[in-house]
Amino acid sequence: MTGRFAFMIDPVDIEEQRSDYADTFTQVDAAAPALSVGELSTQRGDGVFESIGVVDGHAQEVVPHLERLAHSARLCDLPAPNLAQWHQAIDEAAAQLGSGESVIKLILSRGVEHGPTPTAWVTAAPAPDFSAVRENGVRVVTLDRGYDLGAAERAPWLLLGAKTLSYAVNMAALREAHRRGADDAIFLSSDGFVLEAPTASLILRFGDRFVTPAPNGGILHGTTQLSMYEHLAAQGFETAYDRIPAADLPRADAAWLVSSVRLAAAITAIDGVSLPVDPSLTADLNRYLLSPRD
Amino acid sequence: MTGRFAFMIDPVDIEEQRSDYADTFTQVDAAAPALSVGELSTQRGDGVFESIGVVDGHAQEVVPHLERLAHSARLCDLPAPNLAQWHQAIDEAAAQLGSGESVIKLILSRGVEHGPTPTAWVTAAPAPDFSAVRENGVRVVTLDRGYDLGAAERAPWLLLGAKTLSYAVNMAALREAHRRGADDAIFLSSDGFVLEAPTASLILRFGDRFVTPAPNGGILHGTTQLSMYEHLAAQGFETAYDRIPAADLPRADAAWLVSSVRLAAAITAIDGVSLPVDPSLTADLNRYLLSPRD
Repeated sequence: MTGRFAFMIDPVDIEEQRSDYADTFTQVDAAAPALSVGELSTQRGDGVFESIGVVDGHAQEVVPHLERLAHSARLCDLPAPNLAQWHQAIDEAAAQLGSGESVIKLILSRGVEHGPTPTAWVTAAPAPDFSAVRENGVRVVTLDRGYDLGAAERAPWLLLGAKTLSYAVNMAALREAHRRGADDAIFLSSDGFVLEAPTASLILRFGDRFVTPAPNGGILHGTTQLSMYEHLAAQGFETAYDRIPAADLPRADAAWLVSSVRLAAAITAIDGVSLPVDPSLTADLNRYLLSPRD
Repeated sequence: MTGRFAFMIDPVDIEEQRSDYADTFTQVDAAAPALSVGELSTQRGDGVFESIGVVDGHAQEVVPHLERLAHSARLCDLPAPNLAQWHQAIDEAAAQLGSGESVIKLILSRGVEHGPTPTAWVTAAPAPDFSAVRENGVRVVTLDRGYDLGAAERAPWLLLGAKTLSYAVNMAALREAHRRGADDAIFLSSDGFVLEAPTASLILRFGDRFVTPAPNGGILHGTTQLSMYEHLAAQGFETAYDRIPAADLPRADAAWLVSSVRLAAAITAIDGVSLPVDPSLTADLNRYLLSPRD
């Protein structure tokens, strides 16, 4: 098993994008005290993050993750991260991780209260074993996210397109799903449209057409979803972004939750009603998602 | 100036409410590394908190704050905090704080990822000097919170009545207010009712009647608001909880944002339109809020 460790990035480059800041990080043990109690990440969930899958030492889709980190930072009025600095930390962490599957997380916090700069770090750890869920799929329940589809555009301070550290609701939704005997959840807008899962994107199949909720509704644009769409398009399937009424969910010919570390999990039931599954396509998707991707 | 320090509570009492756990905490410097990167407070904003005002070494309204901490923990499926353990940490911190105004924060985090218990700590620091804002008041803007008034009851996983660490939206709302030239914000429900400020409760005055939004709409029940209502009732004023349409805001005879550390700040303008202020009543309210309260 590979170890758990972190790189504290110090100094964090503040918008100057200096190339000589690229290797300024210090390795610490993941269990060691590394953050002060004044950290706004911990006091306010005030920061942004990314989770990157690593397969046999290869960090997947690094550039899309870095671009989304920068996008989230912009939505949260955080200084623009120096992507070269982060990229080098990711490469160094991935090189230290052994064979098998791992996860690298990037965290950009607003910093210590009244402090001058953000705090930033990268964590590296073995991934949980998701082989069973990739094979057996997940039962999901639908849960109201409380926002209508227009909220993101109307109220950008709701940060709906940013991957912030304020994930308490996402975690509560997973607990509610477990309470209902399911494995995961699909969030619906208060006006009845399909959004995303608490920590994954949703892809539905209708015939030879694959569709995912349009990210302009205030959901995250999934890096794994993007990558899977490339793969599906290369195989001649039609891929689309759309506004999907919740009533369409049980009509799907197949559906998956896709995310960077668990990868593609077929949805076997929605709110207790079975959904068709396609084990061979799911296996193919996961083979692709486990292959080196940049 | 009093120092900044924290007590790490270890072991955190898990539901046994053992009385011999009451003084098991370790003092650390607030700037020193104390938390690991695996902390779910920092990775997910997954935990609950309280901010307690301290005046000349007296922690204000400790029991209501502890009761709200327990309430938030319950809504977040966290183990019930041992209130005696927390109370002793608060008393010890308050005793170490010198004269003047300070702030004690209580943080109960879900703990380290895959860890066995929550993490808990108490921070103590001098309060910012709020004398000017107590005298001059605040200009506010109204901002859509995205949720309708029924969301809290319909979707408890939105954690609307819990004081969670996931405050990124609250912080973004304050930045939006500053961007619009205001000092603070009032959240409105998506169906047009008045909620609360990002870090304060709202109290409106209409004649001799004081009214605040009913906390069953998914807002926090403000400890300072409760205390102020006792004071107002003792003076013969009528106090009420109600559903307040946003259209009623400019008709108020006076309005305040009230919170544990800043105390009562008169609202001088809403969305650029002036509101009447009552400097002598505001001064009286702050005198009361600065007096020792339990």
